[in-house]
Amino acid sequence: MRNTAVLSIVCPDRKGLVAAIANFLLAHDANILHADQHQDREAGLFLMRVEWDLSGFDLPMTAFEAAFTPIAAAHQMRWRVALSAFKPRMAIFVSQRDHCLADLLYRYHAGELHCAIPLIISNHADTRWLAETYQIPFHLVAVTKENKAAAEAEQQALLTAQAIDFVVLARYMQVLSPAFIAQYPQRIINIHHSFLPAFHGAKPYQRAFERGVKLIGATSHFVTETLDDGPIIEQDVTRISHRDDLDDLVQKGADLEKVVLSRAVRWYIDNRILVYGNKTVVFD
Amino acid sequence: MRNTAVLSIVCPDRKGLVAAIANFLLAHDANILHADQHQDREAGLFLMRVEWDLSGFDLPMTAFEAAFTPIAAAHQMRWRVALSAFKPRMAIFVSQRDHCLADLLYRYHAGELHCAIPLIISNHADTRWLAETYQIPFHLVAVTKENKAAAEAEQQALLTAQAIDFVVLARYMQVLSPAFIAQYPQRIINIHHSFLPAFHGAKPYQRAFERGVKLIGATSHFVTETLDDGPIIEQDVTRISHRDDLDDLVQKGADLEKVVLSRAVRWYIDNRILVYGNKTVVFD
Amino acid sequence: MRNTAVLSIVCPDRKGLVAAIANFLLAHDANILHADQHQDREAGLFLMRVEWDLSGFDLPMTAFEAAFTPIAAAHQMRWRVALSAFKPRMAIFVSQRDHCLADLLYRYHAGELHCAIPLIISNHADTRWLAETYQIPFHLVAVTKENKAAAEAEQQALLTAQAIDFVVLARYMQVLSPAFIAQYPQRIINIHHSFLPAFHGAKPYQRAFERGVKLIGATSHFVTETLDDGPIIEQDVTRISHRDDLDDLVQKGADLEKVVLSRAVRWYIDNRILVYGNKTVVFD
Amino acid sequence: MRNTAVLSIVCPDRKGLVAAIANFLLAHDANILHADQHQDREAGLFLMRVEWDLSGFDLPMTAFEAAFTPIAAAHQMRWRVALSAFKPRMAIFVSQRDHCLADLLYRYHAGELHCAIPLIISNHADTRWLAETYQIPFHLVAVTKENKAAAEAEQQALLTAQAIDFVVLARYMQVLSPAFIAQYPQRIINIHHSFLPAFHGAKPYQRAFERGVKLIGATSHFVTETLDDGPIIEQDVTRISHRDDLDDLVQKGADLEKVVLSRAVRWYIDNRILVYGNKTVVFD
Repeated sequence: MRNTAVLSIVCPDRKGLVAAIANFLLAHDANILHADQHQDREAGLFLMRVEWDLSGFDLPMTAFEAAFTPIAAAHQMRWRVALSAFKPRMAIFVSQRDHCLADLLYRYHAGELHCAIPLIISNHADTRWLAETYQIPFHLVAVTKENKAAAEAEQQALLTAQAIDFVVLARYMQVLSPAFIAQYPQRIINIHHSFLPAFHGAKPYQRAFERGVKLIGATSHFVTETLDDGPIIEQDVTRISHRDDLDDLVQKGADLEKVVLSRAVRWYIDNRILVYGNKTVVFD
Repeated sequence: MRNTAVLSIVCPDRKGLVAAIANFLLAHDANILHADQHQDREAGLFLMRVEWDLSGFDLPMTAFEAAFTPIAAAHQMRWRVALSAFKPRMAIFVSQRDHCLADLLYRYHAGELHCAIPLIISNHADTRWLAETYQIPFHLVAVTKENKAAAEAEQQALLTAQAIDFVVLARYMQVLSPAFIAQYPQRIINIHHSFLPAFHGAKPYQRAFERGVKLIGATSHFVTETLDDGPIIEQDVTRISHRDDLDDLVQKGADLEKVVLSRAVRWYIDNRILVYGNKTVVFD
Repeated sequence: MRNTAVLSIVCPDRKGLVAAIANFLLAHDANILHADQHQDREAGLFLMRVEWDLSGFDLPMTAFEAAFTPIAAAHQMRWRVALSAFKPRMAIFVSQRDHCLADLLYRYHAGELHCAIPLIISNHADTRWLAETYQIPFHLVAVTKENKAAAEAEQQALLTAQAIDFVVLARYMQVLSPAFIAQYPQRIINIHHSFLPAFHGAKPYQRAFERGVKLIGATSHFVTETLDDGPIIEQDVTRISHRDDLDDLVQKGADLEKVVLSRAVRWYIDNRILVYGNKTVVFD
Repeated sequence: MRNTAVLSIVCPDRKGLVAAIANFLLAHDANILHADQHQDREAGLFLMRVEWDLSGFDLPMTAFEAAFTPIAAAHQMRWRVALSAFKPRMAIFVSQRDHCLADLLYRYHAGELHCAIPLIISNHADTRWLAETYQIPFHLVAVTKENKAAAEAEQQALLTAQAIDFVVLARYMQVLSPAFIAQYPQRIINIHHSFLPAFHGAKPYQRAFERGVKLIGATSHFVTETLDDGPIIEQDVTRISHRDDLDDLVQKGADLEKVVLSRAVRWYIDNRILVYGNKTVVFD
């Protein structure tokens, strides 16, 4: 298990930023393991992710904020520090189709996802067996047009009680309210079963089939108020042909959805995703 | 050089179609080299492409239509027969960006495209040197808002004079009129620099960059009255990252456009594309 | 559930083959759903897969062999007919790494694999929980240098007792003896964690890492006497970079192995794979 | 046109390297445009590429070496600085197949390759027309078993006379002698028409066809004394099927070769490739 810290920074681009951070870390004897940075020329922004070994780092992490704040303030940085020893608490929302859930739970079990999963919430009982297999508490919260507000309140209470850090919509087929989304800014990850912005909204495979495209795709993105419009984290596609009927698209697409969502979740947990405007930088 | 014939068929699906065609060909001692078929269950359609060696085939091709018509009529076939010895006559339309034109001309020169290219038409003089390198007649037809109808008439006259079979828009940046398009149904191939239906219309790379997609694409399609909406022939994508600025997208996209357009053109020449509804079947 | 039959044929290429088969099927009122054929010019071979609806087919399948044998004999066909209603019986061999097993079992559960799985055999107990989750009998057969012959005899007895049709080696880390392999010609499917023929044999990821390749791959193939040398069924690759260490290769490779193996298994079950020489044709 | 400098560094990994370089650049008022670094944990190495704007940089580049040498010496750096204004001088070697040459020359003409091409050397006259089209001096140097040493001496003299910086083997079908290669360490780029290490040596497409692989590839690499064994710069693959005969493999492969070689050449010119051991890091 790595014992490291990750510092993520977004700020106006200017001279001396790399030196400022490198000197700060060196002053505390940090051994830098990875450092990635990016300048968005058009936006005039500097983005950086730096990870260092905590063994030998002579600044207690409890004192980090106080020590780093002057530098951050001097350069107008939006910043965040995360410890690799910390396991973020992930809630999974799912409906009836279970392939993404099964994939995430297997990866969790296999140690690929460094997180805790205190709960699964579903509006159907179909996936309860998977939750039980992996011994994750399963909460059935039925959602209808009539009870939607109450259902969200119940979901929200469950998330709060478990101190959930981020939510993954693993083919959850309900639209969340703006109020709910606002509670988890850039902390709700969805998988959409098309190559966005193509076929946003309902029935993307059906529409892809009808349009006669030669590739189908999947997109993981942060959820914002506008449906299927949030910052894209990852996309991938696969080739189809006239020999594939709609069922084949759904099956080939399911394999895409699994890998695209799991990459997004892993990158989120590893603090590799920086959001700015409506875009992401993923430092791999 | 192959001396073969290709028969393409679209008709309502029913029993006995394969036998009817196989028996007809066998009766004339055909040696079948390739046969591909497809049933579209939903549309109730049967599509077939069959290619046979003409050496030993005892039906003169001049008599083919008369001999095959009864079978075609009995099964309500839309059909076409093409000879591999025939070189279809292709016109290329281009504007200023020349990468697709240069790629097509090189492939033509290298023997990859079994066609004739009697003319290149452009609304700019920039690509004249390429036409001269490969000794293709180059026609400059300026297009403005005011002279559009006259320009199209001039283009049409050039195509007619050269008995052009099909037209390739190799990044031609003018929209053709419905009347012009109607002259060449399913015989005008365009390359659009996005993964359609995403980013149809103007400035697709710019919009892809702004949307923050993780892959960019290119689409070749037949031109219909509705912009960027015709039957898709081929698509492909390539991965981009935050390290790619808009210029990088344009450059990476250019490589995609070249291969996607050249595949469509080769398949068209080889009679591999069958259109039905707003879709294509490409028998590879 | 489809109620169809699939006829697979390999024979010397000659005129009249398609007509012979089409006429035979038409004579019994078959409704052909799919037909694919291939001519290997160099080898002088004709390969065909044809699938038809059994509802309305007026030849009882019990009488098929007698009825078709004259045609097969006349054209020296190696042939096989399979019923889609039949579920082939698959045994899975596995060692400690469980990602391919977990993937196959999930797909089996989800209805993607139309087969029975009467048993899982392993030389380690690690994957017993997966077998129990999906309620598949699990057999621990320890293998050492000393007991190898006895272990294979035990495995063979288990396969025979369950009337196993084909065997899948889902990262089974033991080499099977030629005698064992000879019992299941073209009926043992292995997944090798490299892009064969590169890195055949042991430790392919390690060697890929050391060689500095820019893509890693996975290969599913039929097992023959020569290690990693049997007919290739499917391959795929994924991009890596200097940012990926050996652990990353193993993890990225695991995702490849899963999809490449599951495609091979599904194609095998659907009777899509024809073997000739040391190659396969996969009719998709 | 950018007016930038690129500093490339390989050295033993230790604390303070980023700070040392950032402070050096900041002290001279550099505006860093890109910075990428990599730690190879196993090899204990630190690799960095940093690019900065020369406008405002207050250290004359003529004084750079003297100013930077103390830092380099203190950290045992192998380093190199390059100016984007400098156009490296590239020689292209080619035999009869001209697709890679045509592609490089078109890209050069289109401004994609920031280099000079003072000469093309071939052992055949076939590509002279391409050289003339793009107005590059063409030198025919016939190579036989008997005259090989003399031919290489003639080639060497041509390269020296033109102060060639690096050599691109664009499907040059002769093996260069160790003595020749030693003159251009990590400065000769070859394209091999397979996914190395599979099918190194002669006739890779033929052998891929015989082995029945499902994907074919291409590899660009630096040339070393051992054939097809030097550090790999880039690789890519494309899918093939049983429908592709050997000619199709050659044609599909040609498209791969073009893009794989052109990427390697562009990265080389942009100083993005760092070699260590027998591997490369490509900072994209």
